Amino acid sequence: MDFYAELKQKVALVNEALNEFLPAADVYPPVIHQAIREAVFAGGKRLRPVLVIEAAEVVGGTPKMVLPAACALELIHTYSLVHDDLPAIDNDDFRRGKPTCHKIYGEAVAILVGDALLTLAFALLARNATLSLAPLNKVVRVIVEVSAAAGTKGLIGGQMVDILTTNAPVDATTLEYIHRHKTGALFKTAVRAGAVLAGADDYSLNALTQYAENLGLAFQIQNDILDVTGDMVQLGRPAGGDLKNKKNTYVSFFGLTKAREKAGRAAEAALQALTPFKEEADFLRELTKFIVNKS
Amino acid sequence: MDFYAELKQKVALVNEALNEFLPAADVYPPVIHQAIREAVFAGGKRLRPVLVIEAAEVVGGTPKMVLPAACALELIHTYSLVHDDLPAIDNDDFRRGKPTCHKIYGEAVAILVGDALLTLAFALLARNATLSLAPLNKVVRVIVEVSAAAGTKGLIGGQMVDILTTNAPVDATTLEYIHRHKTGALFKTAVRAGAVLAGADDYSLNALTQYAENLGLAFQIQNDILDVTGDMVQLGRPAGGDLKNKKNTYVSFFGLTKAREKAGRAAEAALQALTPFKEEADFLRELTKFIVNKS
Repeated sequence: MDFYAELKQKVALVNEALNEFLPAADVYPPVIHQAIREAVFAGGKRLRPVLVIEAAEVVGGTPKMVLPAACALELIHTYSLVHDDLPAIDNDDFRRGKPTCHKIYGEAVAILVGDALLTLAFALLARNATLSLAPLNKVVRVIVEVSAAAGTKGLIGGQMVDILTTNAPVDATTLEYIHRHKTGALFKTAVRAGAVLAGADDYSLNALTQYAENLGLAFQIQNDILDVTGDMVQLGRPAGGDLKNKKNTYVSFFGLTKAREKAGRAAEAALQALTPFKEEADFLRELTKFIVNKS
Repeated sequence: MDFYAELKQKVALVNEALNEFLPAADVYPPVIHQAIREAVFAGGKRLRPVLVIEAAEVVGGTPKMVLPAACALELIHTYSLVHDDLPAIDNDDFRRGKPTCHKIYGEAVAILVGDALLTLAFALLARNATLSLAPLNKVVRVIVEVSAAAGTKGLIGGQMVDILTTNAPVDATTLEYIHRHKTGALFKTAVRAGAVLAGADDYSLNALTQYAENLGLAFQIQNDILDVTGDMVQLGRPAGGDLKNKKNTYVSFFGLTKAREKAGRAAEAALQALTPFKEEADFLRELTKFIVNKS
């Protein structure tokens, strides 16, 4: 398989679907729909929606069955970035090489853009049902799982602990809590949503869950590493942001060498979890290597 | 029927359910669950959840069938207040007689509290299904309707236009757009959610929708009037906040007398819409009078 060609094709599929599902930029009221589209089309890697689609395919589903859910996960990710970038939280002026939402539209609009993206995500998750793409009980199960992963015991919980511990040294357990929740929760729910909607059995679902947890960890450690070793072109924002914001990262805690080892071990565990699958999981295998080989 | 006794009983039912559904204040991570509970239990009137329950009862349902949905509507209302109060939007220090979320916990936490309440609302809407309280297709239909009502073509749209037109004079159409969307959309979806989950036929659903639209309008005009005629005790915040924030209101646009006439006409239309129902809608009739007779 040609990993890069397939990744490109999947990303294009996601972008087309996002374009279809998002309200047009000129829909009333003005500004908000334009700001939403700018935030969503600012050049994200679409990792979460690609994971939704690939997980579905690994268990025999098609991309079409899960596209609304795939887009929903990307909208939740984008909302979390828009709110994180706000002056009251991370106060970031750049994201993916472009000025952040609040720098262009002001804080009030950026708050509403995040709220709107989160709301729209749940509309899309329900649309899996209204388009008859999956059985109703699977659709509802996915809404339950995604809301948990995005909530205070998932994404928001990780963000909360991150905020509370900024400027303060943390122990390894807290550091891992932040990473597992800020990033891991959405990675895991992305893979599970795709698998559940495509009718995965429990055995496959468990294997894919193990994969996603470890992939999320590898991804987050790699992000911490890139923040130190990367440059503006690679990152789309100035390097050293974590250091500037006095964030607790795997690099600040363990140092660069140990952080690289940990990312490698998490990637190994992710690959190991895919053992039950044959070539249908080759994309997920390549994706794992792609994620840890960026630096 | 004793309206006040029934209102009190319904509000108690909602508060008990909210207490059950919200994570305990000491659940990790710290601060966020405490802040969520303070925001939710700061003394709201619970009008939206009461509307969910009453609409269900009018069409033959029970409160128990719709309690998660009722709480979900209250959480969406509360999230919108927490975010509206932020310095970047309305910059309000008091709400319901108490310091606002960001005054107590800071802006970062208040942003996350709003995000968490919105996320939890959708978890609760899905819980109608996991508790087997309603058929799956009705649960999904309600999620679709609520996400639309809370989104950029509903609540957020109204808020967006409100922000864009603050300090600028507007025409009557825009004023009505703001009010119909900021308040009307949630009132309407509350009544429809209760009715749909309880199995309303189309005829009853349409009548209740008409009722809700007019009740929402009467309520919002009344709110504008109270902001001028009320005091700190009645409002739970300093009077004259709309004037201070240079908000476009029914009073600033039409004057007090005409605003009162308009509230009266909207209330009349709400009562008219209940004509198909007998005594089972008496509570909704009394509620209408209760809302317009506050000043």
